[in-house]
Amino acid sequence: MPELRKDPIHGRWVIIATERSRRPSDFTPEGIKPVGGFCPLCEGNEDRTPPEVLAFRDNGISPNSPGWSLRVVPNKFPALRIEGDLDREGEGIYDRMNGIGAHEVVIETPFHHETLATLPLKAVENVLWAYRARIVDLRRDERLRYVMVFKNYGSAAGASLEHSHSQIIALPIVPTRVREEIEGSKNYFLYKDRCVYCDIIRQEIRQRSRVIAENSAFVSIAPFASRFPFETWILPKTHQPSYEQMEASRYGPAAEILSDTLRRLKQVLDDPPYNYILHTSSLPEQDRDCYHWHIEIMPKLTKVAGFEWGTGFYINPTPPEEAAEYMREAR
Amino acid sequence: MPELRKDPIHGRWVIIATERSRRPSDFTPEGIKPVGGFCPLCEGNEDRTPPEVLAFRDNGISPNSPGWSLRVVPNKFPALRIEGDLDREGEGIYDRMNGIGAHEVVIETPFHHETLATLPLKAVENVLWAYRARIVDLRRDERLRYVMVFKNYGSAAGASLEHSHSQIIALPIVPTRVREEIEGSKNYFLYKDRCVYCDIIRQEIRQRSRVIAENSAFVSIAPFASRFPFETWILPKTHQPSYEQMEASRYGPAAEILSDTLRRLKQVLDDPPYNYILHTSSLPEQDRDCYHWHIEIMPKLTKVAGFEWGTGFYINPTPPEEAAEYMREAR
Repeated sequence: MPELRKDPIHGRWVIIATERSRRPSDFTPEGIKPVGGFCPLCEGNEDRTPPEVLAFRDNGISPNSPGWSLRVVPNKFPALRIEGDLDREGEGIYDRMNGIGAHEVVIETPFHHETLATLPLKAVENVLWAYRARIVDLRRDERLRYVMVFKNYGSAAGASLEHSHSQIIALPIVPTRVREEIEGSKNYFLYKDRCVYCDIIRQEIRQRSRVIAENSAFVSIAPFASRFPFETWILPKTHQPSYEQMEASRYGPAAEILSDTLRRLKQVLDDPPYNYILHTSSLPEQDRDCYHWHIEIMPKLTKVAGFEWGTGFYINPTPPEEAAEYMREAR
Repeated sequence: MPELRKDPIHGRWVIIATERSRRPSDFTPEGIKPVGGFCPLCEGNEDRTPPEVLAFRDNGISPNSPGWSLRVVPNKFPALRIEGDLDREGEGIYDRMNGIGAHEVVIETPFHHETLATLPLKAVENVLWAYRARIVDLRRDERLRYVMVFKNYGSAAGASLEHSHSQIIALPIVPTRVREEIEGSKNYFLYKDRCVYCDIIRQEIRQRSRVIAENSAFVSIAPFASRFPFETWILPKTHQPSYEQMEASRYGPAAEILSDTLRRLKQVLDDPPYNYILHTSSLPEQDRDCYHWHIEIMPKLTKVAGFEWGTGFYINPTPPEEAAEYMREAR
């Protein structure tokens, strides 16, 4: 059973993932390499994953068999497990709880060599619908406090499988970084009576120098204080705290701008590894004015080293205005 | 001139390092490789670094010439610059200041193939004395608020030069992560009237399961909520907020436990890449009861991916009790 442990100084939690336990000789210098040859996420290998929790397939085709366009399955080596009660206990000055939660894999396409940058828009839209369905379902579980959707693309970004997929982790606590972001937004709202993200969007659309692309409902920007070269945020242009509130009519424009951004990144940076994270609110109704859901995409081009770990400061060698210019000119 | 930019949501700062500016084609897939062949840090190449700000050498030998055992020089491609006034300005909702600060390189040995794990204890002790001298000197500059000492070892840990070195960055603001750690320690102190690190040391020495080694003045442990496999902390056993307060008699034991820890890591994990960071206080006198300087060593064995970026949660596949056991048995 995985175990959650809390650091007594910072309050940050760590998952001690016993299901993935590794001895010293298991660490290769460059981390885990993608499995060559056999792929458990490809069509036809449905029996090599745990049974699906969601799938988009034609009517009449039975679950866990070929004929799907998208599947969501539990992670075979989950960092957290859904079964059991949430036990919290102390050990002297330390705190721990058992690793209750969910860890799922969104298999975005049956085809091994497609990616979100090459799939048709309709397939990207399906991925966005799958995120919504899983968030809504997992939020029903009262033991869970936060659902995080993210994607690791490429080995250097932490992907251990090549086949295009995203991950969903549902946690029994609201994680530190999410709390900090919500707190920061709240503080800004208390001071200004405006959403900080709405203010960012207004200023960026006026200044244009960091805007990459824009459609009816979304804008993509290189943020003013980009931590990483070519960091890109995708924001809905009108205020909306939670992803799962998005109106059905906006999934099209959302898929369009996500696909557009990933295509531009691929062209400008020669198919770089990247992580993206869906930032969405876990706030109760009364606090919903201050937060604004969005997607943060972080190409993995530089190494995070001692300075970044120690300070939380980042050194970024590419000014976001220059990155935005390269990105605008792509395609 | 480098520029500091503040994120309006999180309050985190980013250094836009124009001196190191990179275009899309400058990013190789695995980042910067160590320079093969010529090494600017080797003895005899003193004219290929900026002039030294500190050196340990025999009397009578002139600066910036061979015959040294350790040199500290300004970084040739500094993330921050020492010259100029600290200007702060707004741009709409954003904040920026110019990149005033210092960025230095501690060249730990004249010999290209030595490391902190192979150098004699006396040389490791010299490195620790050099840290002290530079911290004390840089803290005299009233524009600077924090001095961070860290080391990137190995290309995967972000080192761009092979020759054994550490780095020192002095910043015009106290960085977020440092503030959080100090805040966390303060909160614990307010609640318990005890230093949280002193409590950790007491509990670890009593339990033993996470202790790696111990000498007259220091203890090394695998922390309870280790973020990374084989993460190791070195702590002074008696309370002391700032590194630069360390008594002269403790440099020997400090060098001994640092060297011992790095030798064990090297043996257990086959010379892994790692980062270490000196955590020391920037607190005024009245708050000094709550903080306790220490060194955190983080071997770079797993990749930090979307989940860690998004949550500040870490997934660690090696329980610290197991890591400590491997480390205790080494040598």
